[in-house]
Amino acid sequence: MAVKKAVKSSRKSKSVVKSSKPVILISNDDGITAPGLRNLVEVMKTIGEVVVVAPDSPQSAMGHAITINKPLRLDKVDVFPGVLSYQCSGTPADCVKLAVNKVLHRKPDLLVSGINHGSNSSINVIYSGTMSAAMEGAIEGIPSIGFSLCNFSLDSDFTAAKHYVKIIAKNILKIGLQEGTLLNVNFPYLPLSKIKGIKICRQANAKWKEEFDERMDPNKRKYYWLTGEFINNDKGEDTDEWALSKGYVSIVPVHFDLTAHHAILHLNSVKWNG
Amino acid sequence: MAVKKAVKSSRKSKSVVKSSKPVILISNDDGITAPGLRNLVEVMKTIGEVVVVAPDSPQSAMGHAITINKPLRLDKVDVFPGVLSYQCSGTPADCVKLAVNKVLHRKPDLLVSGINHGSNSSINVIYSGTMSAAMEGAIEGIPSIGFSLCNFSLDSDFTAAKHYVKIIAKNILKIGLQEGTLLNVNFPYLPLSKIKGIKICRQANAKWKEEFDERMDPNKRKYYWLTGEFINNDKGEDTDEWALSKGYVSIVPVHFDLTAHHAILHLNSVKWNG
Repeated sequence: MAVKKAVKSSRKSKSVVKSSKPVILISNDDGITAPGLRNLVEVMKTIGEVVVVAPDSPQSAMGHAITINKPLRLDKVDVFPGVLSYQCSGTPADCVKLAVNKVLHRKPDLLVSGINHGSNSSINVIYSGTMSAAMEGAIEGIPSIGFSLCNFSLDSDFTAAKHYVKIIAKNILKIGLQEGTLLNVNFPYLPLSKIKGIKICRQANAKWKEEFDERMDPNKRKYYWLTGEFINNDKGEDTDEWALSKGYVSIVPVHFDLTAHHAILHLNSVKWNG
Repeated sequence: MAVKKAVKSSRKSKSVVKSSKPVILISNDDGITAPGLRNLVEVMKTIGEVVVVAPDSPQSAMGHAITINKPLRLDKVDVFPGVLSYQCSGTPADCVKLAVNKVLHRKPDLLVSGINHGSNSSINVIYSGTMSAAMEGAIEGIPSIGFSLCNFSLDSDFTAAKHYVKIIAKNILKIGLQEGTLLNVNFPYLPLSKIKGIKICRQANAKWKEEFDERMDPNKRKYYWLTGEFINNDKGEDTDEWALSKGYVSIVPVHFDLTAHHAILHLNSVKWNG
């Protein structure tokens, strides 16, 4: 079932957006000044009425954090010509909640998050602030997509990514997404001519092998810095890691029902109640 | 397939734990001083060799955040008599990573997180720091369980919860967990005599309807405080919300493969590559 309800969400009179074009909410986790966000705004302006609500500072690896123990700030900023934009003191998920409740006063027709500087494929989806904004959108019933480029540099070339962002966003505006699902899109860092196309994938069974760099501060107190090596043990040719390694854009449909249905039988083998 | 590998993980010589009893790592998100943690330590001491690595301050609603942009502190503390304990400046997921890499130097036989002050049933699993510690354990191949009591008060009575924690932990030490899965356990806030038993459940399709309390600070600048109302639209009698409302302890098996496999067909209906 396509989420037509969300796509056709009611436009309350107090909404700030009066456009007849699709209303597109943009957020990210690298913060309001990140080049990936600017590139995403540039593409989305060509297909809809854009509103930006993004963190006022980088929020990478924030997972699905929300701010409940302190107040949030939301300030209008003038960073993208002709685009209503706000910076927020909270997490990516906070940005989405505030955008819907306090800026748009309605659900947007589409939520896009990113473009993240760095991959959010496979297990990275769990730690990702970019995907957290998209997941919050999906929880609220908004068709939502997280975009990430497999390159960490702030000087990355987003040309190829922008080409595919437009194709994907236009298609999702047309077909919607199944209820309770969102998309995790990753772009290989290749020139447009070298990208082979788009693959619908599953999340690869990969993980980080952590190391902690142990250091001494100037006061001779120990501290640790997280580092790690990415390990993909998944040999499948239907995973996001496989697709990216072969030069494809990977799209993984994601959901927020974390139930491991296949494990219920195993657990019911225990006589829990004597 | 039970995670026998994890349960029988190799004991490297530099491990701090020399016990022949099962080694149990405990973390939480309410911080090292939370009563829920103290109660969990008390129970787990009766079935294994306990090591605690918990945040040095409350980390509620941290989702699966990890700390990559600043250093982490890890300090030995003396809060639980006879129990090796550390406080960490990071998130619950950081605590688990540091515990395995820098304290235990091996995988524990079991990881338990909590007991959280407040429910982590249904959609709350997404925002939960308690469940994030357990999820990090599962990613590392450790049988992992998050425990939460459906009461926010710091003065909560944990008697009934402790009774069931022991039953559940002992059973999981015996049967293991299926690869890539962990448990989300919630206790109704009832006296032991009123609890009907344990139910294996699926995550209810429920959500928060957010509101933001809009206030003015002493400098006349606006700020927002997140509030909300919990809405359960799921009529199923196999959900965690249903079980808790009927006086059962709910156990939901959870996994970190977020792929919405059922959505792949729908997405493949698009001619992505022209």
